[in-house]
Amino acid sequence: MQAAETLIRTAVAGGVELCLANPGTTEMPIVAALDRAPEMRAVLGLHETVLAGAADGYARMAGTPALTLLHLGPGLGNAIANLHNARRARSPLVNLIGEHATWHIAADAPLSCDIETLAAPVSGWVRRSHEADGMARDLADALAAARANGGQVASLILPHDLQQAETEISAIAPRETARPAVADEAVAAAAQALKAPATALILGCDALLEPGLGHAARIAAATGCTLLAERPSARVERGVGRPDMAIVPYLPEQAAALFADFERVVLAGCREPVTFFGWEGFASRLIPADRETLRLAEPHEDVAAALDALAERLSARDEPPARPLERPAAPSGPLTPDAICAIVSGLQPENAIIVDEAISSGWSYAAHSRSAPPFSQLLITGGAIGMGLACATGAALARPDSKVIVLQADGSGLYGPQALWTQAREGLDIVTLVIANRAYRVLQMELQRAGLNRLGPQASALTQLTEPTIDWVSLSKGFGVPASRVETSEDCAKALADALAEPGPSLIEAVVG
Amino acid sequence: MQAAETLIRTAVAGGVELCLANPGTTEMPIVAALDRAPEMRAVLGLHETVLAGAADGYARMAGTPALTLLHLGPGLGNAIANLHNARRARSPLVNLIGEHATWHIAADAPLSCDIETLAAPVSGWVRRSHEADGMARDLADALAAARANGGQVASLILPHDLQQAETEISAIAPRETARPAVADEAVAAAAQALKAPATALILGCDALLEPGLGHAARIAAATGCTLLAERPSARVERGVGRPDMAIVPYLPEQAAALFADFERVVLAGCREPVTFFGWEGFASRLIPADRETLRLAEPHEDVAAALDALAERLSARDEPPARPLERPAAPSGPLTPDAICAIVSGLQPENAIIVDEAISSGWSYAAHSRSAPPFSQLLITGGAIGMGLACATGAALARPDSKVIVLQADGSGLYGPQALWTQAREGLDIVTLVIANRAYRVLQMELQRAGLNRLGPQASALTQLTEPTIDWVSLSKGFGVPASRVETSEDCAKALADALAEPGPSLIEAVVG
Repeated sequence: MQAAETLIRTAVAGGVELCLANPGTTEMPIVAALDRAPEMRAVLGLHETVLAGAADGYARMAGTPALTLLHLGPGLGNAIANLHNARRARSPLVNLIGEHATWHIAADAPLSCDIETLAAPVSGWVRRSHEADGMARDLADALAAARANGGQVASLILPHDLQQAETEISAIAPRETARPAVADEAVAAAAQALKAPATALILGCDALLEPGLGHAARIAAATGCTLLAERPSARVERGVGRPDMAIVPYLPEQAAALFADFERVVLAGCREPVTFFGWEGFASRLIPADRETLRLAEPHEDVAAALDALAERLSARDEPPARPLERPAAPSGPLTPDAICAIVSGLQPENAIIVDEAISSGWSYAAHSRSAPPFSQLLITGGAIGMGLACATGAALARPDSKVIVLQADGSGLYGPQALWTQAREGLDIVTLVIANRAYRVLQMELQRAGLNRLGPQASALTQLTEPTIDWVSLSKGFGVPASRVETSEDCAKALADALAEPGPSLIEAVVG
Repeated sequence: MQAAETLIRTAVAGGVELCLANPGTTEMPIVAALDRAPEMRAVLGLHETVLAGAADGYARMAGTPALTLLHLGPGLGNAIANLHNARRARSPLVNLIGEHATWHIAADAPLSCDIETLAAPVSGWVRRSHEADGMARDLADALAAARANGGQVASLILPHDLQQAETEISAIAPRETARPAVADEAVAAAAQALKAPATALILGCDALLEPGLGHAARIAAATGCTLLAERPSARVERGVGRPDMAIVPYLPEQAAALFADFERVVLAGCREPVTFFGWEGFASRLIPADRETLRLAEPHEDVAAALDALAERLSARDEPPARPLERPAAPSGPLTPDAICAIVSGLQPENAIIVDEAISSGWSYAAHSRSAPPFSQLLITGGAIGMGLACATGAALARPDSKVIVLQADGSGLYGPQALWTQAREGLDIVTLVIANRAYRVLQMELQRAGLNRLGPQASALTQLTEPTIDWVSLSKGFGVPASRVETSEDCAKALADALAEPGPSLIEAVVG
């Protein structure tokens, strides 16, 4: 058997079902091997940012890694931004990176590049295969690494001649990985803190999913503590039946105001919260230095079990009463970002997956959707804009029975519109709402915050998406996804309802004032 | 003065006229500084691959560096693929990479990333600014580095607080850089070799431009040696009045057949030629081991002066007679890649800039265009596909009086269609011919070369750009560039003639069988 086939068979044995690919010449043995392993679904992306973002979205919803198949250093380079987001999301995924034949590397051919160095900043694990017989073992190790440490990006570099070489090995069985348990002392200390008033419990990683979220709800009901979701959150389960909790705000003023109210903070599966940027006049750390901060569980630890033990210790056995389902009133008139957030909250079906890359246009979504039917919200984790369309693609591949809705800022969406084509080819149930304010609004806001109220011609041009205006309807149709443009709340609601009623992908360009 | 402004003023003092930008929050002081320096033209790109590719194309045509303005590690990441091409093209350029405030880096905020490590594989020079007073000096050093070593990518990392800080320094004067001269011994040895029969002289870098090319033509006329252009060539001056020379072929069979005819090879401004990939049955080195290989000049040395000295030593004073202008006959009937190459060769105006990312569809262009009016041909240097549209954007910014024609393979073009928007915004004279074969044809060819004549469903799906077909006319209009689709040679010729007659960008989707 060719070593390339042992790679794919080992991945299948390890529970991997999806390979997101944009191969080149050096990956052809792996492409051929995919034809001999129909259990592994191969999905093509037109640009590697689609693959990395989709692998991230897939991991967030499936909880298991997908493979990406990338073409040498430049192919990896194209994936870096969304791999950065995946790293920050602690999404498990395995990059298979083709490399020149071992005997050709010394030639420093045009595509040669230091792949290890390029992979390091976005990977928790990097290895180069050195023999065909070891390739299946390398893949098994990559899979274990992807599942270790709370979820990591694992990058495996595969020289072309070794992929092609014959080996006696057929596949390597997967290794079990488990999250480390939390010490009893940490649980006891957290319990003590939570019995005191003015305590916040910040949830991160698995604590934002079931069953951890249910344990947290019982703890809050018993102690009166305030539950918060970390920012960035890779995925948070929200809506009725889930805790009504705020996500730590993006703006430092709002975050500072929030944390001023607490005497102590318990961290459950998250790091200590910091500001997104280093804003003058605000400290990096959001929790004031004179407050008590306790760590119940680090992100890589078994936070769900720790929350269960904590609830037990607090005798917190009762689930709080569920909020009644409540949809915001349908807005009318000119379309605004707030109206879009209300419209989506009003129409999103049960078990919807909301991919939120709305940036400055999505700030009211959390409030509008608090009592929507149960749903998953996926946020941008690493700040590398351009995750929305790709992340949605992966989420839809993981959950074919759910509707995916993307709240997509227009500027960010332009970093990866190629994802639309993969959505069309795979027939994925994704409705993308492009919130078209025709600007990098968040930058205009930052310039104002820095005291620049009147922009000159160059700064204006660098923060506006006009002259010409982007025609998202044309772009979307170009990639094979039906699209429409709306400019009023009524039209937007109708377009969204229609899109949700149809299978397959669609796009709505929602022009806001 | 803010340190950010000293950066821009130092760049202006150093002869830099263009800043290709996609800024974020951490680069706002530089954006504000651009408003105070109208001598520096700021051009927005929707994705960083556009910026890096445009800076590469600009450098190839202008011979001087442009700045890029990138947002932290992920912004740099998006630029990696085209920076790789720029590195292989030896294009001088300076990346300005924004970074978190110095005091915020320890917080490991979401966008934090090891920028130095990410930059290293594509940069000849990397530095982080450590004080506001040193920032202008750092920029002057970056500019000198970009112009050193035959042209390099220089990456300068700029913490936000330091950009914003006040400094007494206003700008630093540029440093002169010169290419090292070639030793007389190398010239003498080359002259000896060129007097013998069956000698090839391979030209690279500056030897492919005037005046080096004229010296080479005199040498060939005097000695009867065969002139070849290196592959990849960043830029080669071709057409009537320039030497009629082949570019070293991509396919190893063809390259091997070519080099079998020579007893000795002289390298002038290029490295020893190697195969693009490590193909089984072919050595990495294209020149057979038993042939004599001499180095007249390394790529970073003053190859034009060395060729002049060599011509002098060979008493090669006469320019060969210029070939008469000769256009290929206008093809008719169904459109094929060969017909497109003939049509372009037949219509390209004098001093056209041909950006060639035609991949498998462009193999007959060299032959058809050999006696076209003088033109520049820019090739893909590093094999990182997705350079065409961006490189053309930069070339047009450098040469507003020339028509730029892009021979663009469809698969490759989908890595960076966002460049079209910058072309529209800046009103650039670029005609893009998308050669739409609806496939990654070069991969299908490689699979066949590897003996896989019947592809299974997954390999087929991974090498075809169908289901759905990409509608390039819609994509182009979405980005603001007028477009049409043609399917016959006659329609293609008419569309190209019409497009060349109009100012501003346009796109022709040329569907080939």
